Amino acid sequence: MYDMTIELRADGGCLYRQIYEHIKKEITEGKLLTGERLPSARSLAEYLQVSRCTVDYAYGQLQAEGYIESKACRGYYVCEVEDMTAVPAGEAMDDVPGETYTEAERELFQDFSHRPEKKEDVIDFSPYDIDMDGFPFATWRKLSKKVLDDANSELFARGDAQGDLSLRHTISRYLHSSRGVNCSPEQIIVGAGNDYLLLLLEKILGDRRTIAMENPTYLRSYHIFRSFSYQVTAVKTDGNGIIVSDLEQSGADTVYVMPSHQFPSGTVMPIGRRMELLKWAGRKKGRYLIEDDYDSEFRYQGKPIPALQASDEKGRVIYLGSFSKAIAPAIRVSFMVLPEELLETYRKHCFFYSCTVSRIDQGILEEFIRDGYFERHLNKMRKVYRTKHELMLRLLEPMRRQFRVSGENAGLHLLLSSLHGRTEEELVRQARESGVRVYGLSEHKMEETAADETPGTVLLGFGGLTAEQIMQGMERLKTAWREEQNG
Amino acid sequence: MYDMTIELRADGGCLYRQIYEHIKKEITEGKLLTGERLPSARSLAEYLQVSRCTVDYAYGQLQAEGYIESKACRGYYVCEVEDMTAVPAGEAMDDVPGETYTEAERELFQDFSHRPEKKEDVIDFSPYDIDMDGFPFATWRKLSKKVLDDANSELFARGDAQGDLSLRHTISRYLHSSRGVNCSPEQIIVGAGNDYLLLLLEKILGDRRTIAMENPTYLRSYHIFRSFSYQVTAVKTDGNGIIVSDLEQSGADTVYVMPSHQFPSGTVMPIGRRMELLKWAGRKKGRYLIEDDYDSEFRYQGKPIPALQASDEKGRVIYLGSFSKAIAPAIRVSFMVLPEELLETYRKHCFFYSCTVSRIDQGILEEFIRDGYFERHLNKMRKVYRTKHELMLRLLEPMRRQFRVSGENAGLHLLLSSLHGRTEEELVRQARESGVRVYGLSEHKMEETAADETPGTVLLGFGGLTAEQIMQGMERLKTAWREEQNG
Repeated sequence: MYDMTIELRADGGCLYRQIYEHIKKEITEGKLLTGERLPSARSLAEYLQVSRCTVDYAYGQLQAEGYIESKACRGYYVCEVEDMTAVPAGEAMDDVPGETYTEAERELFQDFSHRPEKKEDVIDFSPYDIDMDGFPFATWRKLSKKVLDDANSELFARGDAQGDLSLRHTISRYLHSSRGVNCSPEQIIVGAGNDYLLLLLEKILGDRRTIAMENPTYLRSYHIFRSFSYQVTAVKTDGNGIIVSDLEQSGADTVYVMPSHQFPSGTVMPIGRRMELLKWAGRKKGRYLIEDDYDSEFRYQGKPIPALQASDEKGRVIYLGSFSKAIAPAIRVSFMVLPEELLETYRKHCFFYSCTVSRIDQGILEEFIRDGYFERHLNKMRKVYRTKHELMLRLLEPMRRQFRVSGENAGLHLLLSSLHGRTEEELVRQARESGVRVYGLSEHKMEETAADETPGTVLLGFGGLTAEQIMQGMERLKTAWREEQNG
Repeated sequence: MYDMTIELRADGGCLYRQIYEHIKKEITEGKLLTGERLPSARSLAEYLQVSRCTVDYAYGQLQAEGYIESKACRGYYVCEVEDMTAVPAGEAMDDVPGETYTEAERELFQDFSHRPEKKEDVIDFSPYDIDMDGFPFATWRKLSKKVLDDANSELFARGDAQGDLSLRHTISRYLHSSRGVNCSPEQIIVGAGNDYLLLLLEKILGDRRTIAMENPTYLRSYHIFRSFSYQVTAVKTDGNGIIVSDLEQSGADTVYVMPSHQFPSGTVMPIGRRMELLKWAGRKKGRYLIEDDYDSEFRYQGKPIPALQASDEKGRVIYLGSFSKAIAPAIRVSFMVLPEELLETYRKHCFFYSCTVSRIDQGILEEFIRDGYFERHLNKMRKVYRTKHELMLRLLEPMRRQFRVSGENAGLHLLLSSLHGRTEEELVRQARESGVRVYGLSEHKMEETAADETPGTVLLGFGGLTAEQIMQGMERLKTAWREEQNG
């Protein structure tokens, strides 16, 4: 039995974090072994004289990062994790998750009540939309004016091809503290959107690659890779992401993954699978992992999980980040972190591609991050999305006999899978007939995949909807889908 | 002998234009035949009772467009022009060229006197620099504030992949009136810089192309094509641009040209050569001409020459334009006009590439063009550059025994070729030793070209220099290069 003694110090930071770090350390140092059972949250809480909630958060975070797993009715067990020494000391966690999120709901109603109805009164649960009402107009305006007022002719000249050094410094600091990414500003390339950065990456990686993707996946990236002279191959996944033995057999030399929150499945890749992937990449020269960390900022269970890049010791991870979800798509600033080897190739063969983001826009973004506005914005948006997310889960409660809900730990959408063998096409059509748009999971599948035996699954995005729209939409869905059941 | 009767009407617009259009019409309709001699400017002016200057402008424009040529001491002759029926009615010309440019020189001194000296006191005759002091800061600030103040959340959402339709409308109107380009807004793709648009174009054109370039050429484009899986081949040029018979033998299926002002040679491609090129492209399916119209706004001889695209009847020209030279490199807005056939390919195979320019920046640019600021800015910059250009030519006058001056009709640089067999390396080194940077023509040559017997030629860019710097730099060059001659 696991020794429950954890020395909690008053000056040691928040309790949740002390518990999380202690157990994580025990696992990484091999004191807690694979398969070992942890005490129940209740008993540990009693023993440590902390609230049950505090232990739940610590366990939730450990589970989300793949250190432990929960087995139904049996408690928490330590997972198998490869080569744990490479795991960095979770630098991503700076403060306690607040417990005061639900009262924000009333605010939400107010905030969005002025929002115009979408045309034709269709409620669109798009998994791509974000909450644009949360965009910090006033701040952005203020900073834009400031940058333009301070601007001299330098700012209108052609800038550094990789992006302004000062912005890259700011991004590298942000990546380090919030995502555990280890990189120097020299490794960062700023570009106008992921699409552009992938085009550039093709030139760096060369044009004879076989790229493995999870299936379903983010189709925009899929289409982009297909427009390259790349072989694109779908590799089987399980609940933890891409299966590495299948990957090995696929002949791929490059993998595109979203370990922090796979789109559209919502899977968070546990640390064990990450280590396997890194090991796979390290086994042959020229193998690379493309990590698309597109919405890592929004998690509802514990704190953000460090990026895959944070565990990369051999320089195999190409990290892609963007401000499209976190700030707004129109910002059009993404960035790519290249490992040293590829950085050399870039400097030798791609130095002539000029930066696609104007120096003015770079300047505005830099001030936005550097002066703390970005962090405040993220905190605000986390609350907004958490509120919507909780509302969604609450409204889904009565439908749980009909549907399995998944992907609920992070991001701006949930997945509903029919428990009664109803097809995706049926669910989408019934929703549409009631004035609601939901998105079939199969829409995110690569080309002709073999006919599917999985239950019909739909995506419900809530990022761009108001609380009112969510309630109205869920009401319609309940009727649409229940009526069919009776019929 | 040519009948000099040209009916000049008081209500027929400016005299210069009436003369130009009349003679052009006579040539295109075959009434004036190849090789026929035109009356001297003096005699035509006397006959028509107009100023000599007016006829000079008309002849200059006809010559610049390749309809007539001047033979030393013998006068003007009609050129051979292929298939003249395809030539559009020069819509590019709306007003008379002003004659009042020289008095702007004093202003120039004032405008730039506050400009900080470049470090190390080196005067850099860079052919890439533009006059950033001319950037309309106040206007840009005002429009930025306006766009942000008017902005709603729509503006921060992901926009149209090709760029906002309203901006594309504005660009198509501008292209039509100022460059004679015939296109609908649907054919335009807005992107963050030419480099990005070329990357996109690779995906549209497919990856097995052989691209012909003039040599020397714009090296950035050369490097970009080389980073593609394209064959790049240098095709011989004469004083009129790429030689079409050599092109035919090269096996190329795509040609990259700058007909309005070739970089770095400064050649303006005459109408005859343009027609030959278009004919070449029309001869086989899949042949395309990429027209990079990078600095067409700045001409000192006559009015801007219509784009090659304006004469394209078979949909063979891909037109590339940019606001980098005309406004500022940091604006980072370029655009590409696709012919119908390629537009279809784009829509089928590249629809998922999202626009690389933020909607805010698109909005600012749109207002800048639509509300007439762009035209005013161009007029101002034309005067500024014309003044610098005239200053350069005046200061070069005493050096004409040593150098042949070329490329003087347009753009922001001139070329000096040694008449006394001095090498480029010698000229560049002597300049550098006197604190002046000039650019060897061979720097713009593709890879290892066969050793050159042409006289040493250097580029002198003046766009980014103040009048004072130009004078000081030319003084240093005169000394540097004269001393050597005495030595």
